[in-house]
Amino acid sequence: MDVSCEFFEGTEKLLEVWFGNEDSYRECDLRKIPRSAWESILELVKCEIISFKKNDSIDAYVLSMFISKNRFILKTCGSTTLLRCIEPLLYVAKEIGGFDEVLDVFYSRKNFIRPQLQDKPHSAFEDEVEVLENFFEGAAYCMGRVNRDCWYLFTLNPIMPAKLIETPDQTLELIMQNLDPKVMKIFTREVCATAKEATVKSGIDKILSNVTIDDYLFKPCGYSMNGIMKGGYYMTIHVTPEAHCSYVSFETNFPQDGYHDLVMRLLKIFKPGKFMMTIFANENSIASESLQDYRNLTFYGYSSKELQICHFKNYDLTYGLFAKAPS
Amino acid sequence: MDVSCEFFEGTEKLLEVWFGNEDSYRECDLRKIPRSAWESILELVKCEIISFKKNDSIDAYVLSMFISKNRFILKTCGSTTLLRCIEPLLYVAKEIGGFDEVLDVFYSRKNFIRPQLQDKPHSAFEDEVEVLENFFEGAAYCMGRVNRDCWYLFTLNPIMPAKLIETPDQTLELIMQNLDPKVMKIFTREVCATAKEATVKSGIDKILSNVTIDDYLFKPCGYSMNGIMKGGYYMTIHVTPEAHCSYVSFETNFPQDGYHDLVMRLLKIFKPGKFMMTIFANENSIASESLQDYRNLTFYGYSSKELQICHFKNYDLTYGLFAKAPS
Repeated sequence: MDVSCEFFEGTEKLLEVWFGNEDSYRECDLRKIPRSAWESILELVKCEIISFKKNDSIDAYVLSMFISKNRFILKTCGSTTLLRCIEPLLYVAKEIGGFDEVLDVFYSRKNFIRPQLQDKPHSAFEDEVEVLENFFEGAAYCMGRVNRDCWYLFTLNPIMPAKLIETPDQTLELIMQNLDPKVMKIFTREVCATAKEATVKSGIDKILSNVTIDDYLFKPCGYSMNGIMKGGYYMTIHVTPEAHCSYVSFETNFPQDGYHDLVMRLLKIFKPGKFMMTIFANENSIASESLQDYRNLTFYGYSSKELQICHFKNYDLTYGLFAKAPS
Repeated sequence: MDVSCEFFEGTEKLLEVWFGNEDSYRECDLRKIPRSAWESILELVKCEIISFKKNDSIDAYVLSMFISKNRFILKTCGSTTLLRCIEPLLYVAKEIGGFDEVLDVFYSRKNFIRPQLQDKPHSAFEDEVEVLENFFEGAAYCMGRVNRDCWYLFTLNPIMPAKLIETPDQTLELIMQNLDPKVMKIFTREVCATAKEATVKSGIDKILSNVTIDDYLFKPCGYSMNGIMKGGYYMTIHVTPEAHCSYVSFETNFPQDGYHDLVMRLLKIFKPGKFMMTIFANENSIASESLQDYRNLTFYGYSSKELQICHFKNYDLTYGLFAKAPS
């Protein structure tokens, strides 16, 4: 990665799968799956494990992969081939994890900056959907502008009665672009000698409290971190600092009544020129009520370019695109 | 049209364009454009005028075309080539109508049942968008499931400050499919000798009051009607009664505080197996407030499959897909 010239696709592909079992799934657990099995799967995806931390409820790997009892999350950037993990994932989840059902699936990503650099099927969402439909009967959506900035989603959203995820669940994702070059400098070896230094200097360590942090600073630049909390909560940040393709993503399932304050903290840290926000909340989530009125979603210093709300079977999704207001 | 065998694409393409003028547009009027000019334009679209009615504020043509002082609406079904009207429309709107600005554009349609039967660029939305982008800087959206029932929209939704439509404006559209065959029979020459008979027998004459109706019953079947009201309000219904491809659309700009009762009247008349509903309302519309809470949008006997809300610069759009609840 050359800071000045080379292009890097920071835009991640994100897959989240919830598993269940026809009977009870007391004995089932995805964490029974050994690291060697994950390594084989990730080889197909063209990425690898560079660090690992765990607590009672969650195993967290950098790249970013989070394994809980019945929830699998994988987030990969660049030209990785994420969807190739599905077949072996379903296999090990059944054979080792003991799960015979998929309760829900969320595959999502922003439109790529350079889709032509992606391997099949990732260069076009319709091709990705075709692959996903081989495994799941699901629904595909495009939020935002089909012909500009947009965000793709494939999820089960079952039409027929189905088992739903009853655990309160919510996910906030912020995809930031055109970031402040001074802030981006922090995530280079030029400025910081260690990942920990970048984490503290940027203020990432203060975003949420009681977080066990696993951070990694790439050479010559680039940054990834996983944070895990009690109760199966996680946060993860990935930074592509190069000025011509700067990209930062933040994601957490940490429950909040409303996400305004957390988003404002992130905007103060990263100072993006524009950002995309998605919030999922199911009916049992404490985030659910405050999201009903999207007119509340205003962020000081930014103006809203797009706002959409989708009501799915078990989840409400809020999508917004914001850009720095002219000062 | 053979009632039993031949396929007919009832799905309409719908274009609405609002015009303005740099200075005042007191003297400008689209109704100065002579019928012969419209006929030439419609020839390019592959459709024709079969009937005409007017009042003080609106000229209404069957097919469906509604011309007001500064608003143009054209709705065509089958394999018509609607987008070919844009270039000549902009020309006559300027040269004869006196308008030099486009205030807003709405091009929309449901996904076609058989897109392969459409002429270019209508077989794919991305091709339609390409054509539209030659004339307008706009935004393209897909509501609903990209891989199933969905509804496409192209509109200006300007990112930069722009003149907006200040007149209160709202549009309800209902696209109904899998309709009750007994109801559909009304719209055949077998059951009704005249259009008026079909209008009364079905109850279409009772949907809204004080409407001047212009109705047409095709041979052997099929039905179109325009209704015009004081104040530039219109309604229009198109019926494709063939059992294997039954399709009915209803559209009106008649203002309502909430559209629940009007939609229930339509569902009682047509008894669709499923329907798609879109409601546009700008900030000055009386419909605006009641649409904020989409959880109010429930219709007895139907369950909601999809619900989405989009907040555009000057309009809120509500999209819903509903299907008959199992009895």
